[in-house]
Amino acid sequence: MLKNNEVKWSEKQEKIANQVLQTAYKRETSALIASIRDRASSITELQDLWYLHDLLSTKRHEIDGKYVYNSSTIVFDFARLVKEGWLNLDELKELKPDMVSKISALARM
Amino acid sequence: MLKNNEVKWSEKQEKIANQVLQTAYKRETSALIASIRDRASSITELQDLWYLHDLLSTKRHEIDGKYVYNSSTIVFDFARLVKEGWLNLDELKELKPDMVSKISALARM
Repeated sequence: MLKNNEVKWSEKQEKIANQVLQTAYKRETSALIASIRDRASSITELQDLWYLHDLLSTKRHEIDGKYVYNSSTIVFDFARLVKEGWLNLDELKELKPDMVSKISALARM
Repeated sequence: MLKNNEVKWSEKQEKIANQVLQTAYKRETSALIASIRDRASSITELQDLWYLHDLLSTKRHEIDGKYVYNSSTIVFDFARLVKEGWLNLDELKELKPDMVSKISALARM
């Protein structure tokens, strides 16, 4: 019974978690696009162009792994997104309260 | 005597070759900066941003090796630059005529 409840909760929570993850993903990638467009518009030297390339390499690598839902790391992933400003705690309110508390505590560390 | 002449010619010619190489370098890198600025300004999707990243990776790799003076490949290097439009044959006129002929022939291949 407990196990069934847990599975049912987990599926619902996973769906919510994925939606929240998508919100943060869209927010971070939109901000990245805006920041790259802005930075690119003022480039006049080749070294600035290679700096832009380095920045894109780092961001691409970072973003590639960051938004893949993983049930064993999602609490830490959300805490990181809150800490970085891509999510606020209000947006997690549909998740179970103990999960939100954990995320909130981790985000303050 | 022949060898001495050859060395003397070579030093002068190398200096000219390096200047011409710099002209093409400035021309290609300025065009690249302008093209990246232009392309970046119209990016709205993440996949376009990653395409820009791929393009920068390719161009950086290409340009890194392309403008290093190498006496054994310079004729081919100039032919390539002429073919790509970064140099025109008129700009090579201070080089020895037989060198210009070789470059011109290679650029037409």
